[in-house]
Amino acid sequence: MGWRARARKRIITDAVVAVVSLKVEVWSDVVCPWCYIGKRRFEAALARFEHRDEVELVWRSFELDPSAPPSSAERGTYAERIASKYGCSVTEAQVMIDNMTLTAAQEGLDLRFDLARPGNTFDAHRLLHLALEHGLQDELKERLDAATFTEGSPTSEHSALRARATQVGLPEGEVDAVLTSDRYCEAVRSDEAQARAYGISGVPFFVIDGRYGISGAQPSDAVLQILDKAWSERPPLTLVTPQGSAPSCEGDSCAV
Amino acid sequence: MGWRARARKRIITDAVVAVVSLKVEVWSDVVCPWCYIGKRRFEAALARFEHRDEVELVWRSFELDPSAPPSSAERGTYAERIASKYGCSVTEAQVMIDNMTLTAAQEGLDLRFDLARPGNTFDAHRLLHLALEHGLQDELKERLDAATFTEGSPTSEHSALRARATQVGLPEGEVDAVLTSDRYCEAVRSDEAQARAYGISGVPFFVIDGRYGISGAQPSDAVLQILDKAWSERPPLTLVTPQGSAPSCEGDSCAV
Repeated sequence: MGWRARARKRIITDAVVAVVSLKVEVWSDVVCPWCYIGKRRFEAALARFEHRDEVELVWRSFELDPSAPPSSAERGTYAERIASKYGCSVTEAQVMIDNMTLTAAQEGLDLRFDLARPGNTFDAHRLLHLALEHGLQDELKERLDAATFTEGSPTSEHSALRARATQVGLPEGEVDAVLTSDRYCEAVRSDEAQARAYGISGVPFFVIDGRYGISGAQPSDAVLQILDKAWSERPPLTLVTPQGSAPSCEGDSCAV
Repeated sequence: MGWRARARKRIITDAVVAVVSLKVEVWSDVVCPWCYIGKRRFEAALARFEHRDEVELVWRSFELDPSAPPSSAERGTYAERIASKYGCSVTEAQVMIDNMTLTAAQEGLDLRFDLARPGNTFDAHRLLHLALEHGLQDELKERLDAATFTEGSPTSEHSALRARATQVGLPEGEVDAVLTSDRYCEAVRSDEAQARAYGISGVPFFVIDGRYGISGAQPSDAVLQILDKAWSERPPLTLVTPQGSAPSCEGDSCAV
């Protein structure tokens, strides 16, 4: 998966130090299998996108179940929870899960619903905001998705979150400072308020340059088509001076 | 100045918790008198802007002189430095400064160039990034501009910066952590890279929704006109599903 790692690296570097040209915001949760599949499809689209070096990617917070307990394990197995949700038998639920596992495998993902221990994700989202600031957000998002769906790591336990966060290079002290405070609560809430304003009820949801919305894990061809369209329509910065030029400061001097 | 305080408060609150509808980014320095005057003119425009509650304001970093020493005091008085820059007499320079002081007074500002101790502003910009994260950026920007131009406070001394930052409510520990590390260096550089990409050579420079650029301290009528224009032209979020709907997760369940 060399190109994926490279693509990720490229995005991150751009988000922090380079010039932003096309902004992609993705509302997503770390307990959302379609989000993980959608992430791979987006990455495949991005790898083929001509202007991938000028894309700024930001993962936005979305809690599928804000009232989720620390762990949903007491609600039964994944298949039991699906069965209860859809009013079908556990066997039927297992067939649906197997289908999703197969779809994910086609994107190179190894989803282990038998191991999954999903729970509340609020603190995971707060850490994703810390990671954004450090230019490590995509790394942490990938790490958390893999932890949830492949490794059966709990999504709300601080020790597990701490381990994932430091594995991608976040400073231990800052991770602890976030986990033991309410830092980034407002950032998570702000992302969720924006999602409501957009009318987003399901994730993943991609917003390209604040203009195009893509709902769900669309095939990479479809995503690429929208990236191309958004790029070609990027509005240039228009200098407007309705009443002539105005004074400013330049270099070490000011027009005085 | 009740309405100004209210306008500022409103901006800040929106930037953090509410839904963002019109983004205004202002490239500015804290040693730039036209930036301070432009800030007042922008605030006056904003106070009259019908959709002011849906504006997100972000102050972007711009160092007028990245190579500036901690203090420029050794380069002479403000008038002497202006005289040397423009090749005029100190008396002529003083006339120019007096004119600017008068212009600022018309915006309610008390510029004291006789007291000013401008110097390097890199660390001030790093603190403005910390303040952005805490929803206190506009407060700190105002505090720093007033400190530089009205109170004669040095722009680079850590003790002075620390005092200003904590006065607006930033946590002491985090302020110290920034000042004693290289945190937010990349954020400052990223803002400056974006300024270069836009071709910005002087400040203040306002970018409305990434589409309209306003150079210099334009009169508030002109700014208001552009805010109205940008608002009326805001692109709606268009849902694009070129290949039909795609699976997503919603609430506590996923389309499996």
